[in-house]
Amino acid sequence: MEKDNVVLLDFWPSSYGMRVKIALEEKRVSYECKQEDFQDKSSLLLEMNPVYKMIPVLVHNGKPICESLNIVEYIDEAWNHKPSLLPSDPYKRSQAKFWGDYIDKHIYNIGKKVWTGKGKEQEEGKKKFIECLKTLEGELGEKPYFGGDDFGYVDVALIPFTSWFYTYETYGKLSIEEECPKLVAWAKRCMEKESVAKSLPHPHKIYGFAMQYKQNHGLD
Amino acid sequence: MEKDNVVLLDFWPSSYGMRVKIALEEKRVSYECKQEDFQDKSSLLLEMNPVYKMIPVLVHNGKPICESLNIVEYIDEAWNHKPSLLPSDPYKRSQAKFWGDYIDKHIYNIGKKVWTGKGKEQEEGKKKFIECLKTLEGELGEKPYFGGDDFGYVDVALIPFTSWFYTYETYGKLSIEEECPKLVAWAKRCMEKESVAKSLPHPHKIYGFAMQYKQNHGLD
Repeated sequence: MEKDNVVLLDFWPSSYGMRVKIALEEKRVSYECKQEDFQDKSSLLLEMNPVYKMIPVLVHNGKPICESLNIVEYIDEAWNHKPSLLPSDPYKRSQAKFWGDYIDKHIYNIGKKVWTGKGKEQEEGKKKFIECLKTLEGELGEKPYFGGDDFGYVDVALIPFTSWFYTYETYGKLSIEEECPKLVAWAKRCMEKESVAKSLPHPHKIYGFAMQYKQNHGLD
Repeated sequence: MEKDNVVLLDFWPSSYGMRVKIALEEKRVSYECKQEDFQDKSSLLLEMNPVYKMIPVLVHNGKPICESLNIVEYIDEAWNHKPSLLPSDPYKRSQAKFWGDYIDKHIYNIGKKVWTGKGKEQEEGKKKFIECLKTLEGELGEKPYFGGDDFGYVDVALIPFTSWFYTYETYGKLSIEEECPKLVAWAKRCMEKESVAKSLPHPHKIYGFAMQYKQNHGLD
């Protein structure tokens, strides 16, 4: 069998791109990471994701897979050796996917109101954001990981957003640790994993990016 | 093995509920369908889907599965006999899921602008709606079904919305058949399947519901 050719089209502050990196690291898949410039998208990106023209895209032996959780699932199935990210039991799989989808539907959009919003919009964003995190903390319960004893799909889906926590906290003037101590303990536990530590930028680097973004978009 | 107890919490005009019915029919699973009243949600619904409090919910031997495409996938895995709705090849699975997700992200919200919007909002909705359908028609290509030679996951995801086409066309003053003849031919092909014909309400019944909805919400 020829060696796999695996390329990730990425933009480093993207939590969605980080998910893919963690999944590839978990499976010990070697890959090349290409950074995209949003002001000047590569012809490869436009060709590989003509529908959304967005990262992340995984290009596996020339064939594209788009949408981050779809990619994570693909990685779990295409490299089907251990560790498995999704459980094999259909019911447990459905529950993991429900929570992955919940994260996708809520965290980015509500989080953005926390770090770019002003006044009432920001206050409402903060309230909803904490509600979401508490819902997720409730699902975590007393388990070490969302996946149970082992780090899994929902952990991969959520952990990248913790690299943005410092940014949310600084702009939103809030303490996530005070509100959701168990979730923050979970995040620290995940950061002890090499796959996660290697894939998440330092929170201060994210904050620097956010500051620049707000300046560029007249949001500061 | 005890007989499966399968209950679907549903609301009959919901395209999302129809997806679940088609999948259950495809697998020849017997189920009980309970209609929900949105003005007075059942305690069962609130208990089974505490996060969204929305239909459809599949309750299988007392355990809930929420979110329609998640349910369709669960049905495919829990009753893993033929016909399979998703392909077994990881790459083909990822492509099917990409298009299922595309339908989820676009059709309902844009379609709603077509049948409830006015003036510029409606015109923009119509334009985007036709663009989406053309994108889907492009993905269908010359295949009989999105699944290829066999009816599958993407077909299940999209076909329920065709029961709303008459409503979109009437309120939006447009002809989907003129814009997307191959997609309409596909819809007719799908309607020849018993699983689909049994699960989709008559388009005039949907239109009656839509008319009543608009009256109740001061949108007519």
